[in-house]
Amino acid sequence: MTELAISRRLRATPFTSRVEAAGVTAYTVYNHMLLPASFGDLEAECAHLKEHVQVWDVAAERQIEILGPDAWKLVQLMTPRDLGKAHIGQCFYIPLVDERGGMLNDPVMIKHAPDRYWVSIADSDVLYWAKGLAYGHRFQVEIFEPDVSPLAVQGPKSDELMSRVFGDAVRDIRFFRGEWLPFEGHDFYIARSGYSRQGGFEIYVDDSALGEPVWDALFAAGEDLNVKAGGPNLIERIEGGLLSYGNDMTRENTPYECGLGRFCDPWTSIGCVGRDSLIRAEADSPQRLVRGLRISGDRVPSCRVPWTIIGDGGEKIGTVTSAVWSPEFDTNVAIGMLDRGFWEPGRTVWVEAPDFTRPAEVTTLPFEKPTA
Amino acid sequence: MTELAISRRLRATPFTSRVEAAGVTAYTVYNHMLLPASFGDLEAECAHLKEHVQVWDVAAERQIEILGPDAWKLVQLMTPRDLGKAHIGQCFYIPLVDERGGMLNDPVMIKHAPDRYWVSIADSDVLYWAKGLAYGHRFQVEIFEPDVSPLAVQGPKSDELMSRVFGDAVRDIRFFRGEWLPFEGHDFYIARSGYSRQGGFEIYVDDSALGEPVWDALFAAGEDLNVKAGGPNLIERIEGGLLSYGNDMTRENTPYECGLGRFCDPWTSIGCVGRDSLIRAEADSPQRLVRGLRISGDRVPSCRVPWTIIGDGGEKIGTVTSAVWSPEFDTNVAIGMLDRGFWEPGRTVWVEAPDFTRPAEVTTLPFEKPTA
Repeated sequence: MTELAISRRLRATPFTSRVEAAGVTAYTVYNHMLLPASFGDLEAECAHLKEHVQVWDVAAERQIEILGPDAWKLVQLMTPRDLGKAHIGQCFYIPLVDERGGMLNDPVMIKHAPDRYWVSIADSDVLYWAKGLAYGHRFQVEIFEPDVSPLAVQGPKSDELMSRVFGDAVRDIRFFRGEWLPFEGHDFYIARSGYSRQGGFEIYVDDSALGEPVWDALFAAGEDLNVKAGGPNLIERIEGGLLSYGNDMTRENTPYECGLGRFCDPWTSIGCVGRDSLIRAEADSPQRLVRGLRISGDRVPSCRVPWTIIGDGGEKIGTVTSAVWSPEFDTNVAIGMLDRGFWEPGRTVWVEAPDFTRPAEVTTLPFEKPTA
Repeated sequence: MTELAISRRLRATPFTSRVEAAGVTAYTVYNHMLLPASFGDLEAECAHLKEHVQVWDVAAERQIEILGPDAWKLVQLMTPRDLGKAHIGQCFYIPLVDERGGMLNDPVMIKHAPDRYWVSIADSDVLYWAKGLAYGHRFQVEIFEPDVSPLAVQGPKSDELMSRVFGDAVRDIRFFRGEWLPFEGHDFYIARSGYSRQGGFEIYVDDSALGEPVWDALFAAGEDLNVKAGGPNLIERIEGGLLSYGNDMTRENTPYECGLGRFCDPWTSIGCVGRDSLIRAEADSPQRLVRGLRISGDRVPSCRVPWTIIGDGGEKIGTVTSAVWSPEFDTNVAIGMLDRGFWEPGRTVWVEAPDFTRPAEVTTLPFEKPTA
């Protein structure tokens, strides 16, 4: 139990006062900003998320706005995903890679206009990468972090709660699409998206002064829905196979190793940083691959550093990068990478957890729901 | 008191096991890594630092290595400071700015060879900026984060402790110079530098496996010197006027506003990103300037967001960005920025602290020692 020393450098969000009033007990730091990690009981929060509805301060998913005549050129340079068919208002999950094909971030891009994009980033300074590329290429483009703070509404009752605040139009929003909907005379971009498998929305609050009013409106409207404050839930996201940049993938990994090959079109896109490296990486087929693991025994300690996975002969065959006890699955669920030859589902491997070495079963992601 | 939820993404350091054994009570997160902020009593740690010697895990000062035929071209492109006279083994404090002259980081550069540099960074992903620039300019250069973790030895007894472990050669190292000195058959680059005003060294531990042995050797050698584990101390660094990137300066500030004009040579350097913006900023002279403030009253709360400074008429004239009670100075010491016309030392201004509005006196930095 170590305290977080908070200073201005770890930025507060437009919702922080409400998060603290709701009794946040743990933060993580993400994009130099406070991201609520727990309100006291991760397992109860996971169960609640699966049954009711939660409001999450995910302002730490900062937006990088790319604006100007060369905006599209820059965005397409940054990702191996072919964006040729992106529609206005659509969200696109786009791996970003460097010249060697190493993952730099895995944001969601939103196309607001042919010359205007938001890139909703994971935890690394994409602003610096975009600005460096643009400067070097003399692109005519502005790149900045606008005053936009996403607020997520997640869980099975999300449609009901959101429709009470923003009207029934939210129900018609398809997955990874968005609409501009009014709140007290101000239009917010609202997408059906979010970092859970329970369904829901992200409200892109593009005026800090409206952060508390939106939060309060959701809680006022959702009292009978048992709405609660929450945050990306470690248990639910591992069960659901949602990767976390910096945890489950780093610059050392290609998108293919991360199981993100379906978002890469190095042959057909107009050309991106790392194109040739990715073509080579695809031809070689990955040397390691992300997988789920069911780790035996009682609850594992918190996974703070990668845990080594060994084979029957004691040789290193991979690492575990996220792990937690899952009450619903009645086992420890984990995400890690396994070397070629060792990743087939059903195989038994050995995880050197900090307490003792435990057998584990390799699985695909997301984890399959236990049958009742 | 909020807990920090630690995951692999908040990277441990080669010294973390020792830091935890020493009883760390608070971390901050810096360059996606754990940085010890306190071991339980910030005021006692400040007093100890001024009298004895401390060992600090500052591995979070990550190194960006820039290597290759175009390395110098890239480094000089990134900073307005003229590096023409940099010697091998020398440390240079180099503001990094973007095309508008806004601060991106304020690292220390170490020149190891004409084609090899380490950039010891504050809290932002300089790696991404450097890689973006290099890609766009087609520079022939490798840019990566090597396995280098600085360990600081700070305090008046630093020379004595360091000489016991690394020999008397450390005593001859001049400020912001370094030497390669042996430890168990391995040479470390050791510089006279560090983020305090109490003197000391930074050992660039360039092999994680040697982290614990170096730490242990320092503590074994320093028992009679009352050596303790510590970290950058909020009280001491504010008293000493040491700015913190992300706290006291951001992309919104030019180096001139940060009082860093003496490190900028936009006219004479061979040309850098933001050159013309800086020439303009210098000509305009800054619209705001970093200053110290003595804030009246008993101890201020923790400064988590910028506090507004108002003038006699209630108009906003600046912000406080770091503040803490100083036992030695017997007042609250703070760092902030004041608008043109309001920054002369001795002026009384009003700080809207979270508890109540307090009078404060503007001062130069560092704070002048109280006379006994």
